[in-house]
Amino acid sequence: MNQNYESELLERAVTELSRLPGIGRKTALRLALHLLRQDEQISVDLGSSIIDLRKGVVYCKKCHNISQSELCPICSDKSRDASIVCVVESVKDVMSFENTRQYGGLYHVLGGLISPIDGIGPESLEIQSLVDRVKSGEVKEIILALSATMEGDTTCFYIYKQLMPYGVKITQIARGVSVGNEIEYTDEVTLGRSLLSRTLFTDQFTN
Amino acid sequence: MNQNYESELLERAVTELSRLPGIGRKTALRLALHLLRQDEQISVDLGSSIIDLRKGVVYCKKCHNISQSELCPICSDKSRDASIVCVVESVKDVMSFENTRQYGGLYHVLGGLISPIDGIGPESLEIQSLVDRVKSGEVKEIILALSATMEGDTTCFYIYKQLMPYGVKITQIARGVSVGNEIEYTDEVTLGRSLLSRTLFTDQFTN
Repeated sequence: MNQNYESELLERAVTELSRLPGIGRKTALRLALHLLRQDEQISVDLGSSIIDLRKGVVYCKKCHNISQSELCPICSDKSRDASIVCVVESVKDVMSFENTRQYGGLYHVLGGLISPIDGIGPESLEIQSLVDRVKSGEVKEIILALSATMEGDTTCFYIYKQLMPYGVKITQIARGVSVGNEIEYTDEVTLGRSLLSRTLFTDQFTN
Repeated sequence: MNQNYESELLERAVTELSRLPGIGRKTALRLALHLLRQDEQISVDLGSSIIDLRKGVVYCKKCHNISQSELCPICSDKSRDASIVCVVESVKDVMSFENTRQYGGLYHVLGGLISPIDGIGPESLEIQSLVDRVKSGEVKEIILALSATMEGDTTCFYIYKQLMPYGVKITQIARGVSVGNEIEYTDEVTLGRSLLSRTLFTDQFTN
């Protein structure tokens, strides 16, 4: 798709849209032509919302979640338990855990996982600021809530080593059979972990 | 995904992005968070290109192709044969036919196909302006290049009926086995058409 679109404006919009992840030039062209068929206000709203988002969003100086002020609404909520911090990879994971409505503590967004292949070392993540939070003494428990992948495990282990000296309680979210999954189709590693981390059957009724 | 994103700016960007075809709220959120991780300039370029596109693009008053002036580059190209007009559904189809480099005539973009189910009647398409072009006497041949679907066929037939009184030559692009397709997997209607529309074997060498 290297043709001349005969319109510099269209060419520019297609180029910019195709920079988005998962959107190639064909899809970008489809989106641009769609916008041309809609009211002008739709394009103005979309374009300005993208610019305003990037210009207006700041990150919470405490947990690095997205925010519109220095402290995000979660960190500044006095009703939440500031002594528990759930360590997550991304802003999206904060949303996912918030959606469970099972958690009343704070978060710490790392901004990624350690991945030497992608050139992401501990120094490019918000790990030092997590250590600082623990050092300040206000945190009693750190919950590691990272993906059950090699990168997640590596990052968990690195954080564990960094925080160990401060005597904080470090826990990890349970690994086991996903709700709705069949045993037959669950891999052996997960099944092994689910056996080791088994819980009292009656616990599910008391929670 | 009706959660509160805790950021009005993010919520607004997600809502606007999810208005695009094929982009749901989950994908919109992924795109928005992606933009937040990139340089501010990327978002500014994307946002402004979308607004500039919609505000800057006009439609050729003759063929209704997108343009940046009254007449599109194709209609104003004196080297093209203005006596042949290829009738297509959309701006994208003009690009597709131009990419074949097989055509030296002009186009007429209908802006859709007749589809009673979707509430698209002939009056919402650029059919009257096509009739006017034929009436003016400058057109000798009309090539109907619409999709081989029920909507395409309906539209072809409607246009045929409208143009018949003016004695213009009306042709339709060939229907047959797609290049690269196997006979075994070609449907019977297409095979039937390919037999009826057979061409001299030697014609392919002379063109």
